[in-house]
This record gives sequence, structure tokens and C-alpha cells, in this order.
Amino acid sequence: METIEIKRVLISVSDKTGIEEFAQALNDRGCEIISTGGTKKVLENADIMVTDIAQVTGNPEAFGGRMKTLSFQIESALLFDREQDAAEAAELGIKPIDMVICNLYPFAKAKQSGAELAELIENIDIGGPTMIRAAAKNFKYVTVVTDLDDYQDIIQEFKNNSGRISYNTRKNLMNKAFNHTADYDSMIATTMDEQSGILSWRAAYSKGKELRYGENPHQKGYLYKQQGVNGSLYDLQKLNGKEISFNNMVDIQAAIDSVKKLGKHACAVVKHTNPCGLAQAEEQAKALEAAWAGDPVSAFGSIVAFNSELQRQTVEFFHLDGKKSEKKFVEVVIAPAFTDEALEYLQLHKNLRIVKYDPADAISKYDMKFLHGALLKQDVDDKLYEKLVWVTKRKFQLDEELVKFGLIGMCQIKSNSIAIVRRDSHGSLQLLGMGAGQPNRVVSTRLAIQKCKENLAREHNGENLEAYFKEQFSKCILVSDAFFPFPDSIEEAHQVGIEIIVQPGGSIRDKKVIKCCDELEVGMLFTGIRHFRH
Amino acid sequence: METIEIKRVLISVSDKTGIEEFAQALNDRGCEIISTGGTKKVLENADIMVTDIAQVTGNPEAFGGRMKTLSFQIESALLFDREQDAAEAAELGIKPIDMVICNLYPFAKAKQSGAELAELIENIDIGGPTMIRAAAKNFKYVTVVTDLDDYQDIIQEFKNNSGRISYNTRKNLMNKAFNHTADYDSMIATTMDEQSGILSWRAAYSKGKELRYGENPHQKGYLYKQQGVNGSLYDLQKLNGKEISFNNMVDIQAAIDSVKKLGKHACAVVKHTNPCGLAQAEEQAKALEAAWAGDPVSAFGSIVAFNSELQRQTVEFFHLDGKKSEKKFVEVVIAPAFTDEALEYLQLHKNLRIVKYDPADAISKYDMKFLHGALLKQDVDDKLYEKLVWVTKRKFQLDEELVKFGLIGMCQIKSNSIAIVRRDSHGSLQLLGMGAGQPNRVVSTRLAIQKCKENLAREHNGENLEAYFKEQFSKCILVSDAFFPFPDSIEEAHQVGIEIIVQPGGSIRDKKVIKCCDELEVGMLFTGIRHFRH
Repeated sequence: METIEIKRVLISVSDKTGIEEFAQALNDRGCEIISTGGTKKVLENADIMVTDIAQVTGNPEAFGGRMKTLSFQIESALLFDREQDAAEAAELGIKPIDMVICNLYPFAKAKQSGAELAELIENIDIGGPTMIRAAAKNFKYVTVVTDLDDYQDIIQEFKNNSGRISYNTRKNLMNKAFNHTADYDSMIATTMDEQSGILSWRAAYSKGKELRYGENPHQKGYLYKQQGVNGSLYDLQKLNGKEISFNNMVDIQAAIDSVKKLGKHACAVVKHTNPCGLAQAEEQAKALEAAWAGDPVSAFGSIVAFNSELQRQTVEFFHLDGKKSEKKFVEVVIAPAFTDEALEYLQLHKNLRIVKYDPADAISKYDMKFLHGALLKQDVDDKLYEKLVWVTKRKFQLDEELVKFGLIGMCQIKSNSIAIVRRDSHGSLQLLGMGAGQPNRVVSTRLAIQKCKENLAREHNGENLEAYFKEQFSKCILVSDAFFPFPDSIEEAHQVGIEIIVQPGGSIRDKKVIKCCDELEVGMLFTGIRHFRH
Repeated sequence: METIEIKRVLISVSDKTGIEEFAQALNDRGCEIISTGGTKKVLENADIMVTDIAQVTGNPEAFGGRMKTLSFQIESALLFDREQDAAEAAELGIKPIDMVICNLYPFAKAKQSGAELAELIENIDIGGPTMIRAAAKNFKYVTVVTDLDDYQDIIQEFKNNSGRISYNTRKNLMNKAFNHTADYDSMIATTMDEQSGILSWRAAYSKGKELRYGENPHQKGYLYKQQGVNGSLYDLQKLNGKEISFNNMVDIQAAIDSVKKLGKHACAVVKHTNPCGLAQAEEQAKALEAAWAGDPVSAFGSIVAFNSELQRQTVEFFHLDGKKSEKKFVEVVIAPAFTDEALEYLQLHKNLRIVKYDPADAISKYDMKFLHGALLKQDVDDKLYEKLVWVTKRKFQLDEELVKFGLIGMCQIKSNSIAIVRRDSHGSLQLLGMGAGQPNRVVSTRLAIQKCKENLAREHNGENLEAYFKEQFSKCILVSDAFFPFPDSIEEAHQVGIEIIVQPGGSIRDKKVIKCCDELEVGMLFTGIRHFRH
């Protein structure tokens, strides 16, 4: 497809950044520049020759600026087919416009500043989108520039190619242009709906890439970037290893969410979206060790995330330079930064996906679920507890840090969720066992206790295991995502020696549950906040 | 706010349905109608007086129809402020246009018909969106009609109010108009991106309503309807009971998905998105009974779905007219239809949410997950197996219906997922026990076996329980969502007497797993298709 020589350009920009330089470059090669009100003034101040748009349209700028470009002359100059309509255009006195540089009234800015309806309405651009859409429709002949960030590239192409712009550039700019007007009207539609008390939601996702497959190999999968957000997971940096898969992305998010609210140094070991290991320690290496010990069987093939710069000493735990039987293989390692030594060591495992992303960036306001033809949207769950209240006769001196750690861990585990946490022998906070995804609370409790026992048996590795269980469970706190409907879970916890149970409360049988605690001399804390996560 | 008298109307419609009647009504009250090309012809054929747009603009229709309405005169007539710009308009000879009736070139239709780039481009309307947007911006004075479905209401209002339209109507129509142009440009942007090999995705959700709360009481929650789809879950009909909650919606979808692929009569009992009970039977009542027996403890407070018209005989199982201790309380009952008798019986429980929705309508092509600033999209998982192949020495006569039932059930259970299914004494297909959401396969296997034992013990309720276990497990099939990485799960299954195991295969240790089966004389079927569901 042909390059097109740019001879006549229409410039009408709301944001005037960089426009003088662009216009100057056009002017230098003899382009005629047509312009409107404010833009014209800026260009003339920079000593650039400008044709007043009124000379082209034959109409005055009217109605407080509502009418500037909109006219038979301008839209025709953008829209007519340079081949088949040439004679008709000549007869009507229409000369082609080859390029439009336009950005729109700042509706989004007005909205953000809390503008009222009348001001919002004044910020709805009518002439701009028409020019942009007309030019984009006719991209076969016309170059449409809507993004400040493209100015430099286009100036370069224009200069390097004797004032001509290629078909590919015009086509890419057309794509941008229609996305721009779609975004603009989406913002207007949603905002005006809001103004009318109508709840609507629109989203635009771009830069889509096809993944190897979806959740399973027979499903196609795609990853998109949400427009206009910071810290998108799309922008994570992969420093090493195989392609990141659909399931990797889901687990990466779960791992990041697991450590982002914890203090330094935290480590999460995630399998199928649940943290099966989680720890926070003074030393990063201890955090990994303690997290891994939460479920060393499931940890193989897991996704591991840290919230601090990853150190060589920490990652040596994986024994990547050891014998095959000693190596601990994981799928993904995520950290906000890596020391050169840590990175070098991790790269010993050629396939290991090493991901640089700062968990602190993972901030979303909403959480959404797609249903058949419908959408559920909710605020993210970012409040840990209302207040911590002992509801039993027995009260303990509160290790608030441990309770918070337990709540944060539990929040990341699928409902019904039970987390059993402790301070280990190094003083690190550790998820010792968890129960996830069960239709009934007591089963989750049993799963968590069973996992603790396995882990304690491994670490004790000696005689008198029952006494060790008792001793260690007495240091544990059991945290539940929702109330206990029956005392059965309390009984199971007490049986192994757990003395502190944390739950939101709110059951019609709370009294019965508390009575059970009192009889068993268990301490129970109510938090007032439920944390279902399905 | 004021009503506005409609004196001058611009009509330019691509879809001409119903336009004669509308124009006639306007004409009858003496409105001037301005119109373009095809629309004008249709109106004149219906003997309606029409002013040619060229008379207003002073310009010809030009460039193969690309230029018709776009002009200083038309856009001014729509845009000028009837109060502060009145004198200026009079001076410029601009007479107000009070109403625009416009629908756009059928870009979506062209796309659906598989049109090539050139034809798509011709179907991008430039003049239409400009008119609509100008009229919508000036809705304080102008009525903008973009939806055929609104014609009747507006004609009525126009007739009943002496040719006047209210502010509220104009505002509502403005909201529709901006949503219309946002949708139009979204469709164009996405399609043109596709044409350029760029993957992008846009969605619009409307009719938002605030729910009581989100997943938890401290989170705000909202439900929206996706635009342009059939069978939206948003449109389910609630026939009785409390407000449907955020978590109800999620579970309703899971319950519907659980029965939609099964034969009649199927019943699913869902708790926290997992079917803890599932059955298919000749009689609907037997299906409920068998599903409930899959986990009668968790079934309390569950969501129950059917895929056939619900009968009184079936729902009597809930004992809603019985003593409190006999009543089986569930949160939601869903069916495609209800007999009057069934409905009447269910309504004995005042709070019970009774939902009419046909699971057959729950068809989505894609499945999506929101990440921080990113989106994962995939094809839905709608293929059960590649082929069923015995990989062990021992082979069984295949009860294909039971295998399919097991696969369908397993697909709805969160990974790692194990489903144990059988034909019960009535010949019904039944999920006897399931293991869900575990980071490690053998734990899911244990959970499923444990649940089966509980259920078998309850139904046997006699002596020689071990023999009964053995007998019943020998009739069971164990289905796994993904391969077995080790033989441990096989050993556990064999130990209770399970003889048939179904799994996709694909582990590097398949041989070891098959060898284990052969040694234990277990039959193993490979399906070739994994079904992770996180």
C-alpha cells in the first residue's frame, strides 16, 4: 500500500504539549496548517504560519466554541475518496486534508475534579471525535494522530520519508483513533449514567496476547492489559524461564496477594491459588524455610513469592546446584527485586520462571466475577477485623502480630478456610497448616490439624511425639474465615491442644460455641469481620 | 425542568422499521421533518411531507453518501444553546432542530456477515454519531431517539403532552445515546483491531444494581447485566424469598452449570461453588434424594438446582410442612419451571429463594478472570474427553453413562478434584463422595473416600459395614481432574475396593501408576483431557 504525502494538516488540540515542534516540522516542509482558536494562537506565537479554519469552512467559530471544525468543507476534505471522488471534490471546491492532529476536551479530567453536570456537558467534545472518526475511516489516505506519545515517531517518519507517511503507520493510527473515541464515549456514557443514578460499567482491555492455552490444554487462553491502570500484572517482568501460563498468572496473583500485606520478609508458597505455605521472618531465608515447611509435599511445583529483594542466601534453599534428589523445583519465583547473585543462582534452573514484580503495586479497588451474561463486582476485601474481643472466660496476652498474620493468611485461603499459625523456634510467623475449599467447616479444621501434625512430626523427628504436638499446638492460633455453626471444630482443636481460636462470630449458636470453649478452657477472639473467599 | 415542544425533527435511519408511524405522528401535529436519501424516500412513499436536508445545509449529498448531514447548519441547529446563543443563531440563520431520530450504519451486521476491511469501513457511520452526540450533549433542549424500542413510548408522550417531551425523557434518551455511540465505537475499535491482528477486548455492563453486600458484609457488591447476550443470569426470575445475595449468584451459576449438561432429571446440591451432591435419575424425586445423600450435612443451607420442571412430589423431600427438626432448609431452589403445586409447597418457606431459570440457557463462549490491571480470557471447558482408553490389563464393560456423569460432576469441582460416582440401588447416577480444592491429589482422594464411607454407613445402617463398603465401592468409579503424579491415590482407592479409575493421563510417571493398577488389578481409563478448575 502507498505512502501518502502530507500537504495539508488540520490541528485542533486540547492538550497543547509538543504541538509547536510537530507543527514546525510540518511547516518546514511546506505543509499548510489549518487550525482553530486556542491551538492557532499557540502556533502563531511560535511563528508558525497557520490558516484560520474559518477561511476553509466559510463559517465563523460560533456558540461559545461549540462550532469550530464541524462543517461540510472540513469533513468532506477528510472523508472523500481520493480516487473515485476526485472530480466531485474538485467541482465542490474541496481540497484534501491529509493529516489530523487532534486530542479531545478533557472530559476525564473534568470528571476527576468532581465537575457538576453542566460543566461535564461542556467537556463533551463533538467536533473532535467527528474529525478523528472521519480521518480514521479514510485512513487509506489520511493520517490521524490522537496520542501525544506518537508525535516523535511520526515527525521522524515524516522527515525521513520526504514528508510521507506509510500505510502501516496510518493503519496503526486508525486503530488507536477508534480505540480513543471508544474510550472517550465509554467514559462519557458511564459518567452520564452515574449522573442519572444508573449503574453501568465498561472496561477496555488491550495488548492481548494468546497464551499457550487456557486453564487446560484444550482451551484457548488470552491475557490482556487493562487500560489506564498502574501496576498491571500484565507488565510483570519475566527474567528467566518458560512462558508464563494461564494458571501461572492466576497463582502469581494469589502469591502476590498473600505477601503484599505482610511485613518484611514474607514468603508465600502457592498451589492452585491457595497458600499452602506462608511465613514472615526477620531473615528472608528463614521466611522461605518456614513457608516451605507448611506443606513440603505440595510445595513441589508451586509458585513462590517474596515481598523483599531476593538474596542468594535465601534461594540456596532450592539446592539448584545440588543432586537431583535434593533440588526443590518450583514453577515460578516472584520478588520485587533480585540481587545479581540470587538471579544467577536461580538461573541454574533454565526453565524456572523468574518474575520481577513488586507486590506493593498490586492494588485493585474492585474484584469481579463473570457469570453467564452478567457481572458481579465488589470492593476488595481489605479490612482485617473490626476489633479483637475475647468472648471467653479464658483470655490470653495477645500476640497481635501473630493474630494479624493468621488473619492475612486465612483471607487468601478459599472458603471454608481454616489457618493454624504459630511463632516457630526462630520467632518467625508461620502458617503451620491450613484447610481450604471444603463445603463444611469441620472438615477444613481437620485438614488443617492433620497438616500441622505431619509438619510437626517431621520437624520433631524424635520420641514422645504426642508431647511435642501438645506443646506446639499450645503455641498455635486457629483462625477461621467465618463463624463456627457448631462446637465440633472447637472440640477437634482442643483435642490436639490448641488454646486460642479466632473467628468473626455471628452465628445463632455463638453462645453454644463459647460455652464449649469455656468448658474446654479455650480462649476465643471475635473479630467482627467475615472473610469468605470462594 | 421544562418540557420542550417538538417543532422540527431530523430523521436519518439505517433501519427503517416503524419510522413511517413515528413520522406520521410528528407530521400530524405539524412538525417539520428534515430527512436524507433513503429515509426521505420511505417517508414520501408514505405520503409524509419531508424537507430535503440539502435545503437546510445548502450542500448536496456527496461522495457516494459519505456526506449527507454533516454541516455547519445541522450541527449548529442541534448544538446551540437556546437561551444564551439565541441571537447568534438568528443572525446566522440557524433554526433549532428539536429532535433527532437516528440509527447507525449496521457495522455489527457487516461484521457478522464476515465482511472484508473495505466493506467494514463503508459501514462506519460518521454523520450519524455526530448528530446523535450533538443532540445528546444538548439534551437540555433536544430529544435524541436511537432505539426502535423507544418509538412507541415517545409517540405516546408526544401525543399526550401536546407535542412536548419532558426533561426526564430527554435525559434518559441522552444516557441511551451515549451508551449507543460508546457501543458502536467499541465494536468498531475491536473489529478494526482484529483486522490489524491486534487482540483487544471491551465489555459493557448495564442495569447495575447494588446488592445487600459483596462476598462479605463489609464489601459493597453490585450485579450488572452484560449487553447484547441472551440467557443472562441477571434475568433469572425470583418467584419467592429473600433478596438474592452476591454469594447466592456465584453458587446459582455453579449449580446451574452442574446440571446443564446432564440428562433429565438431574439435581445438584451446591455449597461454596462445589457440588457436594449431584445425581441423575429417571424420577426427579429420586434425583434430589440421591444428590442430597452425597453430603447431607453440607446440604443444609445449600443451593439446589434442577434441569426439569419441578414437581410437588420432589420438593416434599424438604419436609417444609413437617416438624422443625424434619425440615431441610436450603438457600435457593432453581428450576427451569415449577408446577403450581411445587411452587405452592416451596412457598411454605417464606424466605426460600425460588429461582426460575433454565440451565439450558446458560451458554457462554468464554470464561474470564480479573487480575490486578489485567484480564485472563479462555474458551469455556466444554469437551469431556478425547477418547476413553483402557490402559490397564484389567478392563471392564464400560458403563459410559456413568463415566460421563462422573466426568461432568468432576468438572464442576474445584481442583484438585476427585469424584467418586456409582449407580445406586434405584439405578440413579450419584456422586457418592468428592474431594475438592486441595493442593495435593491424595488429600482430595482421601476426602472423597471418607465422604463415601460416611454416606454408605448411613444408608447401610446395619451389620457387616466393611462388607457393604467393599460391595458398594466395587460399583464405584473414581474420576480425577488431572493425572496422578504418584501411585498413592490408586493404593488408597484400591484399599477400599474401588476397581475403576478414570483420569486424563499425561504424567511422566504414568507407567508407574499403570503398573500399580495392574498389580492391584484395578482398571484405569485414560480420557486425554485435563479439567483443572481453580
